[in-house]
Amino acid sequence: MATLPLSYPMSGGDGPHSYVRNSSYQKAAIDSVKEKTKEAISKILDFHNQPFKGEVFRVADFGCSFGQNTFDVVGNIIQTVELKHKQEKTEEEKIKNPKKELEFHVFFNDQPNNDFNTLFKTLPLLLSTRRCFAYGVPSSFYGRVLPRNSIHIGHTSYTLHWLSKAPEDVGDRNSPAWNKDSIQCTSLVGEASNAYRVQFKRDMADFIEARAEELVPGGLMIISGQCLPDDVSMVSTWKGVVIDMIGDCLFDMAKSGVTREEMVESFNLPIYFPNTSELEEVIEQNGCFRIEIMEEVKHPMEDETLSNDFIVSKFRAIFHGVIEEHFGGGLIDELFGRFAKKLTSYPVDFKKCRKDMQYFIVLKRYVF
Amino acid sequence: MATLPLSYPMSGGDGPHSYVRNSSYQKAAIDSVKEKTKEAISKILDFHNQPFKGEVFRVADFGCSFGQNTFDVVGNIIQTVELKHKQEKTEEEKIKNPKKELEFHVFFNDQPNNDFNTLFKTLPLLLSTRRCFAYGVPSSFYGRVLPRNSIHIGHTSYTLHWLSKAPEDVGDRNSPAWNKDSIQCTSLVGEASNAYRVQFKRDMADFIEARAEELVPGGLMIISGQCLPDDVSMVSTWKGVVIDMIGDCLFDMAKSGVTREEMVESFNLPIYFPNTSELEEVIEQNGCFRIEIMEEVKHPMEDETLSNDFIVSKFRAIFHGVIEEHFGGGLIDELFGRFAKKLTSYPVDFKKCRKDMQYFIVLKRYVF
Repeated sequence: MATLPLSYPMSGGDGPHSYVRNSSYQKAAIDSVKEKTKEAISKILDFHNQPFKGEVFRVADFGCSFGQNTFDVVGNIIQTVELKHKQEKTEEEKIKNPKKELEFHVFFNDQPNNDFNTLFKTLPLLLSTRRCFAYGVPSSFYGRVLPRNSIHIGHTSYTLHWLSKAPEDVGDRNSPAWNKDSIQCTSLVGEASNAYRVQFKRDMADFIEARAEELVPGGLMIISGQCLPDDVSMVSTWKGVVIDMIGDCLFDMAKSGVTREEMVESFNLPIYFPNTSELEEVIEQNGCFRIEIMEEVKHPMEDETLSNDFIVSKFRAIFHGVIEEHFGGGLIDELFGRFAKKLTSYPVDFKKCRKDMQYFIVLKRYVF
Repeated sequence: MATLPLSYPMSGGDGPHSYVRNSSYQKAAIDSVKEKTKEAISKILDFHNQPFKGEVFRVADFGCSFGQNTFDVVGNIIQTVELKHKQEKTEEEKIKNPKKELEFHVFFNDQPNNDFNTLFKTLPLLLSTRRCFAYGVPSSFYGRVLPRNSIHIGHTSYTLHWLSKAPEDVGDRNSPAWNKDSIQCTSLVGEASNAYRVQFKRDMADFIEARAEELVPGGLMIISGQCLPDDVSMVSTWKGVVIDMIGDCLFDMAKSGVTREEMVESFNLPIYFPNTSELEEVIEQNGCFRIEIMEEVKHPMEDETLSNDFIVSKFRAIFHGVIEEHFGGGLIDELFGRFAKKLTSYPVDFKKCRKDMQYFIVLKRYVF
């Protein structure tokens, strides 16, 4: 695709380093919003006051990756909608079509290099029966990927901190935003941080704009993910500490000659945790959605001291693709071996770290 | 999927035995109907007398597999529709929306174990721009896989000789249809042949019924594939000869102890080449389609003496999946090694073989 943003899929298959086996942190987060999602749909979705013809209900999971998490999310949405639909059937409808049930179409969206083969081969029964049709949509969600005015509920979980790309300036030796000593903007001030912020706002605006086109008026967009309270900087969180530590390992490897220093200097993670106010601002600027819910969610593992093994596996599964893209595949084992050792020598002091924030947002597409 | 028919995908990836590198016979067939497809769409598709709102045009390729063939087919359809649409724009439309272009949605359908990853990663520019949205639809086309009343042009090439399964009776030692000495019904008479015929009719009827639901009234279904003239039996064609030879190799391997004789006896290819009259009969029985075109097409390689290497590679790429499913993967190399040797000793006498037939069919969904 000509305009395809960079894309770093989660580790495919189901081997020991795969995303499937190392996404329990994400799963815990998804579980924590399961009930909230049910409540929101029950309360906010309106079968009677939106252009909804009542035969086919369309659900999309943007940036679905693969594995059980997306199936759980979509299954939860379908079951909630189904129940609500049965409960709210008018007496007239009940007499006219006593047996008529909703038909669901589920669109699984992710980058073309996502492991759709695994996704399709593991579709659970609920999503592959004749009443539910599953589609793969291989395209970047920072542009439109679905027909206009077609989706009733859109969903995305823990995807929007992935930028479409690292801001160009931070990798440019001649730019004032050049981000030489870090692989993200965790400890940055000034130009580099600003370049990340601008990139986030642009990407998020594109995401919201595309969804505004795809959702039917009255349709819901459910978003969960991670951000930072307005007074917290990334470097003071445990994730920021860990990202810096991985960066340090890369610089160590450059010193040992495993890679070149320029390679590490020009490497920048396309990741940004916005502050809550930045997030809210972009949504409101779009103007097509009413913010029905925007609240903090406690991550179930938030107060746990995570084991070093857990941290290494989690970050390996997540960063594997983006690191391989820049450095080639040969250095992954050594990098995460070094990272594991460094973590043992300098364990994260979770008590000293500030907390990042998990958010749960439900937007409703205005009926103009 | 609970009711998933058996499925034997073409060999994945792009290695030496892959379908991608061994589908030139199919490509030649597809090329031979390219012009016919253009002509049929130009002549038969009616933008003005069908429920077509003129914004989004939906195309589906059923049993698409992966690789260049499906992209060529779909690209050809899109370009033809686009041209016709521009030419037939009314003066009123031209003034009202001078720049408005059709948006295309393309649904690539195949079994969930098709190599969708390769399909999605190799999408050509035409099919991945903002004016054209591509979807993967992982489900058996012997049932409904798409929304009712949604597709404007459906297409399938060289897929319908694959049955949803080999008829159960032919693998059953206690059935009069037990097909002990052959891996298909090439040389069969009586019960086994009849079991294959019944299975074909049932599958083909399911296919046509599902497409009747999915196509919009006035929509076109374009089908090409291979069948047999009414007076020709499979065993007298070169493909029949080759299939019997592969069967003989399997029996040889049972004698050598590489596999067991019962395994070969119970193996039956889920493949059937219908006679033209059988094909026509099933379509007409459905009653939802008018047969606009049903004609013989000359396969460009029809008069060529195909090399043994070509034959071995082609049949390996096609049968790899179905053989592996039954026997496990370990015997493929030896089987096709033996087959190559046997072909050298007993080359196919193409001049003595009767010809099978390539058909090109265009159906139009009745507007009731």
